[in-house]
Amino acid sequence: MAYSNEKLSEEKVFKDPVHRYVHVKDRVIWDLIGTSEFQRLRRIKQLGTTYLTFHGAEHSRFNHSLGVYEIVRRIVDDVFDGRPEWNQEERLLTLCAALLHDLGHGPFSHSFEKVFDLDHEEFTQAIILGDTEVNKVLTRVDKGFPKQVAEVIAKTSENKLVVSLISSQIDADRMDYLQRDAYFTGVSYGHFDMERILRVMRPREDQVVIKQSGMHAVEDYIMSRYQMYWQVYFHPVTRSAEVILTKVLHRAKDLYEEGYQFKYAPHHFLSLFQHKVALEDYLKLDEAVMLYYFQMWQEEEDPILKDLCRRFMDRNLFKYVEFDPAKEYKKQYELMTLFSKAGIDPEYYLVVDSSSDLPYDFYRPGEEEERLPIHLLMKNGELRELSRQSDIVDAISGKRRTDHKLYFPADVLYDESSKKSTKKQIRTLLDLE
Amino acid sequence: MAYSNEKLSEEKVFKDPVHRYVHVKDRVIWDLIGTSEFQRLRRIKQLGTTYLTFHGAEHSRFNHSLGVYEIVRRIVDDVFDGRPEWNQEERLLTLCAALLHDLGHGPFSHSFEKVFDLDHEEFTQAIILGDTEVNKVLTRVDKGFPKQVAEVIAKTSENKLVVSLISSQIDADRMDYLQRDAYFTGVSYGHFDMERILRVMRPREDQVVIKQSGMHAVEDYIMSRYQMYWQVYFHPVTRSAEVILTKVLHRAKDLYEEGYQFKYAPHHFLSLFQHKVALEDYLKLDEAVMLYYFQMWQEEEDPILKDLCRRFMDRNLFKYVEFDPAKEYKKQYELMTLFSKAGIDPEYYLVVDSSSDLPYDFYRPGEEEERLPIHLLMKNGELRELSRQSDIVDAISGKRRTDHKLYFPADVLYDESSKKSTKKQIRTLLDLE
Amino acid sequence: MAYSNEKLSEEKVFKDPVHRYVHVKDRVIWDLIGTSEFQRLRRIKQLGTTYLTFHGAEHSRFNHSLGVYEIVRRIVDDVFDGRPEWNQEERLLTLCAALLHDLGHGPFSHSFEKVFDLDHEEFTQAIILGDTEVNKVLTRVDKGFPKQVAEVIAKTSENKLVVSLISSQIDADRMDYLQRDAYFTGVSYGHFDMERILRVMRPREDQVVIKQSGMHAVEDYIMSRYQMYWQVYFHPVTRSAEVILTKVLHRAKDLYEEGYQFKYAPHHFLSLFQHKVALEDYLKLDEAVMLYYFQMWQEEEDPILKDLCRRFMDRNLFKYVEFDPAKEYKKQYELMTLFSKAGIDPEYYLVVDSSSDLPYDFYRPGEEEERLPIHLLMKNGELRELSRQSDIVDAISGKRRTDHKLYFPADVLYDESSKKSTKKQIRTLLDLE
Amino acid sequence: MAYSNEKLSEEKVFKDPVHRYVHVKDRVIWDLIGTSEFQRLRRIKQLGTTYLTFHGAEHSRFNHSLGVYEIVRRIVDDVFDGRPEWNQEERLLTLCAALLHDLGHGPFSHSFEKVFDLDHEEFTQAIILGDTEVNKVLTRVDKGFPKQVAEVIAKTSENKLVVSLISSQIDADRMDYLQRDAYFTGVSYGHFDMERILRVMRPREDQVVIKQSGMHAVEDYIMSRYQMYWQVYFHPVTRSAEVILTKVLHRAKDLYEEGYQFKYAPHHFLSLFQHKVALEDYLKLDEAVMLYYFQMWQEEEDPILKDLCRRFMDRNLFKYVEFDPAKEYKKQYELMTLFSKAGIDPEYYLVVDSSSDLPYDFYRPGEEEERLPIHLLMKNGELRELSRQSDIVDAISGKRRTDHKLYFPADVLYDESSKKSTKKQIRTLLDLE
Repeated sequence: MAYSNEKLSEEKVFKDPVHRYVHVKDRVIWDLIGTSEFQRLRRIKQLGTTYLTFHGAEHSRFNHSLGVYEIVRRIVDDVFDGRPEWNQEERLLTLCAALLHDLGHGPFSHSFEKVFDLDHEEFTQAIILGDTEVNKVLTRVDKGFPKQVAEVIAKTSENKLVVSLISSQIDADRMDYLQRDAYFTGVSYGHFDMERILRVMRPREDQVVIKQSGMHAVEDYIMSRYQMYWQVYFHPVTRSAEVILTKVLHRAKDLYEEGYQFKYAPHHFLSLFQHKVALEDYLKLDEAVMLYYFQMWQEEEDPILKDLCRRFMDRNLFKYVEFDPAKEYKKQYELMTLFSKAGIDPEYYLVVDSSSDLPYDFYRPGEEEERLPIHLLMKNGELRELSRQSDIVDAISGKRRTDHKLYFPADVLYDESSKKSTKKQIRTLLDLE
Repeated sequence: MAYSNEKLSEEKVFKDPVHRYVHVKDRVIWDLIGTSEFQRLRRIKQLGTTYLTFHGAEHSRFNHSLGVYEIVRRIVDDVFDGRPEWNQEERLLTLCAALLHDLGHGPFSHSFEKVFDLDHEEFTQAIILGDTEVNKVLTRVDKGFPKQVAEVIAKTSENKLVVSLISSQIDADRMDYLQRDAYFTGVSYGHFDMERILRVMRPREDQVVIKQSGMHAVEDYIMSRYQMYWQVYFHPVTRSAEVILTKVLHRAKDLYEEGYQFKYAPHHFLSLFQHKVALEDYLKLDEAVMLYYFQMWQEEEDPILKDLCRRFMDRNLFKYVEFDPAKEYKKQYELMTLFSKAGIDPEYYLVVDSSSDLPYDFYRPGEEEERLPIHLLMKNGELRELSRQSDIVDAISGKRRTDHKLYFPADVLYDESSKKSTKKQIRTLLDLE
Repeated sequence: MAYSNEKLSEEKVFKDPVHRYVHVKDRVIWDLIGTSEFQRLRRIKQLGTTYLTFHGAEHSRFNHSLGVYEIVRRIVDDVFDGRPEWNQEERLLTLCAALLHDLGHGPFSHSFEKVFDLDHEEFTQAIILGDTEVNKVLTRVDKGFPKQVAEVIAKTSENKLVVSLISSQIDADRMDYLQRDAYFTGVSYGHFDMERILRVMRPREDQVVIKQSGMHAVEDYIMSRYQMYWQVYFHPVTRSAEVILTKVLHRAKDLYEEGYQFKYAPHHFLSLFQHKVALEDYLKLDEAVMLYYFQMWQEEEDPILKDLCRRFMDRNLFKYVEFDPAKEYKKQYELMTLFSKAGIDPEYYLVVDSSSDLPYDFYRPGEEEERLPIHLLMKNGELRELSRQSDIVDAISGKRRTDHKLYFPADVLYDESSKKSTKKQIRTLLDLE
Repeated sequence: MAYSNEKLSEEKVFKDPVHRYVHVKDRVIWDLIGTSEFQRLRRIKQLGTTYLTFHGAEHSRFNHSLGVYEIVRRIVDDVFDGRPEWNQEERLLTLCAALLHDLGHGPFSHSFEKVFDLDHEEFTQAIILGDTEVNKVLTRVDKGFPKQVAEVIAKTSENKLVVSLISSQIDADRMDYLQRDAYFTGVSYGHFDMERILRVMRPREDQVVIKQSGMHAVEDYIMSRYQMYWQVYFHPVTRSAEVILTKVLHRAKDLYEEGYQFKYAPHHFLSLFQHKVALEDYLKLDEAVMLYYFQMWQEEEDPILKDLCRRFMDRNLFKYVEFDPAKEYKKQYELMTLFSKAGIDPEYYLVVDSSSDLPYDFYRPGEEEERLPIHLLMKNGELRELSRQSDIVDAISGKRRTDHKLYFPADVLYDESSKKSTKKQIRTLLDLE
């Protein structure tokens, strides 16, 4: 039997708290899960530093990747199979793309990519196409198969329907993470009737569409997403942890560039510092390795690196105030001056962080292309863009919300053993008094 | 105001998926949570290697410790407060002991303690009594307070009632972990009506007792515990991961003792290898550090260390067969000989693992003391040992169940590129053919 | 001890699937629950005919009334007690009003009130103030107490804060029914973080307000309400059952007025038919009695009453099409003519039903007064109307949504044993062909 | 297409709180649900008078019947279909038997059957085989089909495998009601991993068996059943309501036999009183009709009927004490004498009620036959009776538990306006003082 059609002698079942069970029958999927590159995702948290705000959020990307696979498997096998618009030959491609879509994520991706100017999507491509165990499994299916999978994940595939299952405004990725992140954090947001949405998904040539009767479930999904963004993903305490993490990496890089002699040499980071990251090096970088360095660096001479590492490890985070960078640039300048005067380096200790989200949008001429809108399949067979049918979605469509905060180490500002009056000035300016 | 009575200006609330919220009003508790020793528990998984079987089980001991604290807080504040048998002055002692009871756990404790002959309870004592941030907080309450807390956790305290809240056959520790581990693994066992049990707990001089009307909830709790032990904690796949982990540590220790030159020197392990672990060293050993070494050691020369590390990291586990060590010692001997002949070192690759549990027991004369039975408080005020009242509990009381399995690397045994016939003999003996 | 302060010797606990437990400590509350007028609520379904659409929705108003009481009890005892803006002397008044707020509901209220031009709120007043067991209990507290309770429920009380707990845009009534109706129907809407909302409610002189930090939970609540209205309460199949029920009652009344001789005399309905309902009669009318008559009337001579009763009892409902009464009045007229021609009385068999809801609103000058907006309590102590702070709520604020449907018996229209061509004309006009 | 194979043009879906959705694709099933006999089950509560103890338990047998159908449908379509031991031709038979298994239940069956010496199973047979809408639908499948369905429900069918799906110690009936009753009462018992059990069910010639790997889920199911019996089904307050209900019916019958002139003639009961119940009359008896009479009878002259009806309607129940009929018959006799002396008729006001349950059993020679044990399908293909494999089940196997209580109207006994000293004697004898 062709490897692509090979089934396991007995179906494997993973107990999953979100979907109850994840079912694997295909040999190819089973083999992919067993690769070292996929197992590595167990050492990358799904929500980065969020566990410092919501202590339950310790789940990994391994967890989430299985979930996305399971959702797609159910769409394909339980809903699409047998419909004329769906070609069951694309089943395996779709499942593989779902399983592997996050393969290239680095440790604490958000800060990591920002500091080192990397893009996890490029690494996903590199792992699928490079000299890896994953590539070997995919190649066994067909020589051209890795490329096909990579293109679906990169959204460059011609098969727009398959792409839309993995990434669109209502894809398996989002449906899994909203529910999963809600489950592990324990928040009451993030719930919507996925069973219903799956039942009303229909394949069309260019995209997956939703039967009109499922509109309310989709509205609920969009609202869940909105709440999760502002209640969980953009939580100001999580952002404080990200700010510190960013500054740790920043400081280490700056020190390296200045020629600083590390007590504990940053072997794993060298290729990053030198802007020439080899795939092999990248794959060694997981969160365990990062935390190892952060522990070691607490014993470095450099007071800033040392302090920031300790803050991250012991969750001694920065405090924040609301801040409007457009209007308050003068204040920011004043604060920078005062921080310097107080001996607190503003480059590392006075940080503006901005979060922004667009809850739902449809394509508008002249805009960047990515926002494939959600289409409802009306009873008469027509497609209708969601916000034209739903009052609620219309009301929030295209409304971007942005939030800015200014982060700083409040404990230092209240430490009156030095620079007492400057610190008082700072506290007054920050409205802390 | 005395530090022991100091309240936070605003109650702090942790979102918890199991108890919905964990509430902290006491300054002392808040300060303890902020110590580096307590934050370290975020880097120790509650269920060690169980995440390799149940992928959701990635939660930490930090998580669990907050949960035990919250349960005890609710018993003390919502149920016991105001009852004549309860002295509210012991509230803070009880809360601190609950929060800190697992403080000394090492990384992957089960295997770790076995190989290095350590006991996490001793380290809990050492952290509470030693030169640590935790000790500083407790000492601020009262010079003798650390010792009091340590004694409750060590079960040597004269206050048997407080001890029984933290460790007995129905304590806050078990009530939290059964529910928490069920939640994160996603299994349907582990549920019981804790709300009901809390409502019917009553303080008595020597122990916490349960009002008769709560008996059925307690039966359910005992059955949940039974199921969790055999379905989750003793899952044969988890035990396979523990076997490998044990052998990794074993091999590293053996190599060190043989004078092997490590490529990546095991700095963090030196004091362990030398049987003289300093508290400071111990505190640096978290699971991130362990995983860092396991990654590095995949590049060592020693083929066994290298292979075992790779197996652990990539979840390439051992398979198992049922095995009765008492009856099958001859077979075991034969297998050892054949393994050696096939070039597979039986010391590391042929392992018997035994699990054993006693679901509930009462004290029987002449037995080890620890099994304080559960007592029901009857309507007439008498105490009655649970198994004398409950048919179900009577039926299982004192019935120990034991399970033995024999673990080995099946992939190697099927690899016919070498020692083909010996391997076939082994497979036949193991009933794999 | 004064009756108003009397506590039960042991707290009574009701197991409740929504709030886990309902706790009763006050003798007054316990006595009220035991009255025949309150027990009667067990025979009135919370959602009327909704069980014909969602089979789980068989729960009673008794169920809901306990739930509202429990929510208010928690607000008062766990959140408000001890705050300077709250007078704990109003505790009992608040609890009684919560428990009794729905006391006057008739069977299948919606249709019932419409046909007989009644208002359940008037009957709630009448029961509380009249010669009833409930009145006796309340009078024991204080001679003026029944009036106080009645005024809170009627929203004429001067104590606006207490009124707002029972009826406002975010009151205990709505919070209970959204969750309860979601639970019993099994839909995934209706969930929001009530725990969080309760924790952030604060008493103010004129109303209960919500701390700013709880805004997102309130947004979620408003969205839940929106979804429940359109997914459950206004479900077109439920409306079909209501249409039939209305027409049954209508027909019985018309027959009575025409002097029709009932085989089974409508004793329980006489005072209704004669527009002079005595309280004593009203209290006998529960849903069991209604269903008894509907069963009996299936054996009447009148073919319309007989048919409509059978339809209701056997759930043989009307079908529907979308309909715009403003634009399609001509079509409606044509249909009426054709129905008459086909021997199907349009008065009973061709019905337009309209549903309309306003998800959230604030007071606008010149509008009817009832819409007390939700106010957020900002960090600086100011109050801010919700839609001025929440983008989502602002987007939907004041947006009324209305839906019209036209109901008819499709089975009759497809029955070609008579009036074949007229029925075909009707079907064509209704777009059924 | 044959009616037996006819599918609906679009699958119908019922939202179900326990199974999420109930799916109907078969025209036959859809038509059965629409019959008046099946719709009648909406007016029969699943748990009779339990709603007077657990207010959430207002769900109907309609609810439960759909649930049993859905479980069987999933076993047949998702697990059995395609296995050699299963004949998919028996699918429809199995689904119909599942749906209709409770069709003959009368109102408040437990008391009702006891007083009138009826058996709902006989009525189920009668409805299926008699002149009913259900019979018409089944006959359309095949002339002999009603008989086949009836035989499966009566357990006389030769197809023992199908019978075991509907009634055995682990059947779809029990699996639905345990979960459903737990859901609606809100208790935390009644949960077990049904998903797992369904996945490991296997068809064998004579019965459904369970793969060995599912043993722990079955243990959990047996424990859930045990807890539900003692915590919910045999709850002493529910039994008090049953006692009163039994006595109401008893009194009405006695009065009828004595020639008492009812103000409100018991038309619906006549055939019952005369021991010649016609099917047509039986089908009119639902709980709405019963409650109608109970309301009316509160206005009868007879003080006992009047009082008992009022007690039932207003939930003014009897109290109870523990009682051992074997040892305390003398006391019972004394009490009867004293009750008579106090003017309280002991026939209606002093009642011993006994409940008894056998949690699990296997067949033992010489015993009544019904206890088909649960068999595990071992890895080697053998069948093994559950209690031989499970320690827990072995421990409770065959252990019958019985509970006796003595019920009486405590309020009357404390009313000292008459027979003061006799009542005091009674209270002393009952240990109430």
